[in-house]
Amino acid sequence: MANKSAAIGVFDSGVGGLSVVQQIQAQLPHENILYLGDTARVPYGSKSTDSVLKYTRQCADKLVAADVKALVIACNTAASVGTEVLRASYPNIPIIGVIEPGASAAVSHTKNGHVAVIATESTIAAGSYVRAIHALNPDIEVRTSACSLFVSLAEEGWVDGSLVEAILARYLNPLFQDPEHHPDTLVLGCTHYPVLKAAIANVVGPRIQLVDSANTTAGQLKVALTELGLLQDEASVGRLQCWVTDGPERFIRVARLFLGHELDPNLVQLVDL
Amino acid sequence: MANKSAAIGVFDSGVGGLSVVQQIQAQLPHENILYLGDTARVPYGSKSTDSVLKYTRQCADKLVAADVKALVIACNTAASVGTEVLRASYPNIPIIGVIEPGASAAVSHTKNGHVAVIATESTIAAGSYVRAIHALNPDIEVRTSACSLFVSLAEEGWVDGSLVEAILARYLNPLFQDPEHHPDTLVLGCTHYPVLKAAIANVVGPRIQLVDSANTTAGQLKVALTELGLLQDEASVGRLQCWVTDGPERFIRVARLFLGHELDPNLVQLVDL
Repeated sequence: MANKSAAIGVFDSGVGGLSVVQQIQAQLPHENILYLGDTARVPYGSKSTDSVLKYTRQCADKLVAADVKALVIACNTAASVGTEVLRASYPNIPIIGVIEPGASAAVSHTKNGHVAVIATESTIAAGSYVRAIHALNPDIEVRTSACSLFVSLAEEGWVDGSLVEAILARYLNPLFQDPEHHPDTLVLGCTHYPVLKAAIANVVGPRIQLVDSANTTAGQLKVALTELGLLQDEASVGRLQCWVTDGPERFIRVARLFLGHELDPNLVQLVDL
Repeated sequence: MANKSAAIGVFDSGVGGLSVVQQIQAQLPHENILYLGDTARVPYGSKSTDSVLKYTRQCADKLVAADVKALVIACNTAASVGTEVLRASYPNIPIIGVIEPGASAAVSHTKNGHVAVIATESTIAAGSYVRAIHALNPDIEVRTSACSLFVSLAEEGWVDGSLVEAILARYLNPLFQDPEHHPDTLVLGCTHYPVLKAAIANVVGPRIQLVDSANTTAGQLKVALTELGLLQDEASVGRLQCWVTDGPERFIRVARLFLGHELDPNLVQLVDL
């Protein structure tokens, strides 16, 4: 059994999962976090289910070998294909994917029963948000759109301005054009998307509630650790250590956008999977 | 020594290198081509030199093990970091990268001695176009821009229209704003970019000559095979076989855009590197 001073393992295809780390740090400031970004193979969102599943297993195995006390799959694409598989492989470690918390937030926010989900091509193709939402409430109407350019926009730091909004609008507008089915809630189903939140809000307008899973994922993690008696002592100051599979320079440069603060470059290391 | 009925090995990080294959098929219709797209790890252009070099070696080793008679590095990022390394590893196989043909085309096209180069982040950072152009003519002024979104646009099939042109303009306009140094030639330094050629031409205007290396690369390959007596018999009908490292579905779907015709799905196989 893991001990409470062990780190929480968080992984993503790249840098986007740091938006989940930001929420974990806010809600669980005493916890050590070991983050693994598979930057050598990013993005996952346009790759096949078989490849994503293989990468997901490799990421999880690497973190479990480092004795993490919990695993957070901070990549919607990986969570979409790998959450159940990893739970079967590691029944003694709490495993939180970002899909269920996102679905749960959407179900609790919608008032008219119409929800829209935007995510990568692979996440949408896997149908996991639709399944997770319908598992909670089968009557909710779900519309989805694969927003393939959004990850590149976020990684390029193109997060505001009229050109960015025009790009977003091409993906978002079709979700809101049917007057019979007008979603009141939009799930940002990719951990890269929170950095585009303000621009997305400008495009869809103030009446649409934006839901990202970072906040609810951190909340579910806190509940799981509390139930298992695995919360870190309050005297401790949480430390974030990062592993990346490609050279750390770009990761360190882009991290700030997702994490809200600078990374300590000494705590970012190149690893092999 | 290779025999002339062997295939030409061509590799790229993904599907973009098919724009080079299109030119090889046009100039060398009798040749068999074995194309390897490392779709499991695409893109290379935002990854570190060490990772790109490792992947480049793996791609080349795989094709050489299949007894190809020549190697074409149809990815500017891979060619940029790997051409010399591969030539040292395989001194008996002609190895054509796309950088030198592109540089040579630019040098022969420019009239005012000012050339602009657009490519991925890694290709620009490696400085290989500047070096290759200066090796041919050190007096040419070279301006460069890393156009990080172009690969995603091309892969998404966003290749024309006013929104696409506005995105392109944000990268391209700064190259042409200094009246003292106004390039007359623009090198498309990434094998994904030819599908954006018409839109790029609209943005930069008709007075700028666009150069892509696909055509000159095929020309250099033809010269090399002729000199070595390795041209395939003219009675033979060239066949294109493709290997991909991620599931073939997406590759087959996007291929047409780059190749100009449909791929035979039976000739696309998943391989491991």
